[in-house]
Amino acid sequence: MTNSKPALYTALSPALLHLYDVSHAVVVIIDVLRATSTIATALYNGAKCVIPVDSVAKCIELGRQIDGITAGERDGMIAEGLEHGNSPFEYPRDFIGGKTLVLTTTNGTKLLHMALDRGAEQIITGSFPNLGAVCSYLIAQNQPVVLACAAWKDKVNIEDQLFAGAVINQVKEHFHINCDSSQIAETIYLDARNDLFQFMKDRNASHYHRLNNYGLEKDIRYCLTPDSAPVLPLYENGKLIIL
Amino acid sequence: MTNSKPALYTALSPALLHLYDVSHAVVVIIDVLRATSTIATALYNGAKCVIPVDSVAKCIELGRQIDGITAGERDGMIAEGLEHGNSPFEYPRDFIGGKTLVLTTTNGTKLLHMALDRGAEQIITGSFPNLGAVCSYLIAQNQPVVLACAAWKDKVNIEDQLFAGAVINQVKEHFHINCDSSQIAETIYLDARNDLFQFMKDRNASHYHRLNNYGLEKDIRYCLTPDSAPVLPLYENGKLIIL
Repeated sequence: MTNSKPALYTALSPALLHLYDVSHAVVVIIDVLRATSTIATALYNGAKCVIPVDSVAKCIELGRQIDGITAGERDGMIAEGLEHGNSPFEYPRDFIGGKTLVLTTTNGTKLLHMALDRGAEQIITGSFPNLGAVCSYLIAQNQPVVLACAAWKDKVNIEDQLFAGAVINQVKEHFHINCDSSQIAETIYLDARNDLFQFMKDRNASHYHRLNNYGLEKDIRYCLTPDSAPVLPLYENGKLIIL
Repeated sequence: MTNSKPALYTALSPALLHLYDVSHAVVVIIDVLRATSTIATALYNGAKCVIPVDSVAKCIELGRQIDGITAGERDGMIAEGLEHGNSPFEYPRDFIGGKTLVLTTTNGTKLLHMALDRGAEQIITGSFPNLGAVCSYLIAQNQPVVLACAAWKDKVNIEDQLFAGAVINQVKEHFHINCDSSQIAETIYLDARNDLFQFMKDRNASHYHRLNNYGLEKDIRYCLTPDSAPVLPLYENGKLIIL
């Protein structure tokens, strides 16, 4: 009954998303370092919602209109004119509880809007902090899935692929997978899973170096740790909310 | 002196080639199953040259003009109107020796023309049958390198990435590599190198199934075997010739 299972694909870069039909699929936006890890964390810590916007100007304008927290980065640094950055540690419960976070990032929020423009049936966000919640949801939905990696300015990265591999490793019995990118993602995840941080370091991952140079080893370690923020962020009416 | 080494990047799909500067680089066109394996084999077996063209119509026209052998596939089958297919076994020495092969394929020859249009400084072709020759050349040239995978209709595939990983594994001491795609390619190559064929089979590689369904296991095994056609095909004035 293999063919009755829904299909699962992995798009390793926003520049490859157009190759996959998202119109009947659950699209998982993956930006491990750090947008989707921060989204899961802020929602887990009680944020009312997260509004992803694709430009700094929109972020500032919307933040003013709704009295939200404006946050985001460009090239790994807090973007000019915004209040906060893209670190999950900036959003503890006593700060973010009950508030709305307006977020813009280099890659993740742009990809989300791209999936939206392409008519994605459903959009959720995935990261190691909410790995289990994503997998349970995908299995329960029983619909086609596109794992959409945010990458870095369209260049494929290791960490988003590792997360795609972790999802595939947990859900593969429930899907029909005829996708070499998915196979490669699971293969490197199996190589890496005993110590994801060490794997990133050993493989000289470009983003590991970028963030580590900013003193963000703690962020990297958190963003590679499964299930510390077990929520399912679902995009509805312009907002990411907990399902 | 790390920074004095030339850079090496891997473009996993033609749809990602634009992310890399090819204008000062040696671009290695990689289409393991089967275009670049067949190119190396035909040249090794004495073909005068191989002329890659990007359409079946051009292939027929040029073949007529120069009295060449017309060959090529679309979707893995001999294209209508052409004399021969894309199997290396179609080009033994007693057939191809001294002749010109005019070749068009689904992915490989298109990518070569894309690299040409983007102003690549040098174009060579790579495949397991000429792995060692490619590596020696890249080390000797001491210039930036882009390993360009032909993929399958822009979807990333396993076999081209395995070849990129094999090259990286042999040449990495001579290059500065800040490229996650290259790291992943080498990682899966190290997983696979003891038995590339079995790896393709175990990982359910999409192209493995496509060709195996056509009864082409022998082709796949040949195309994954290193150094059986140790030549360096270099693109010059519209032709691939042995350097």
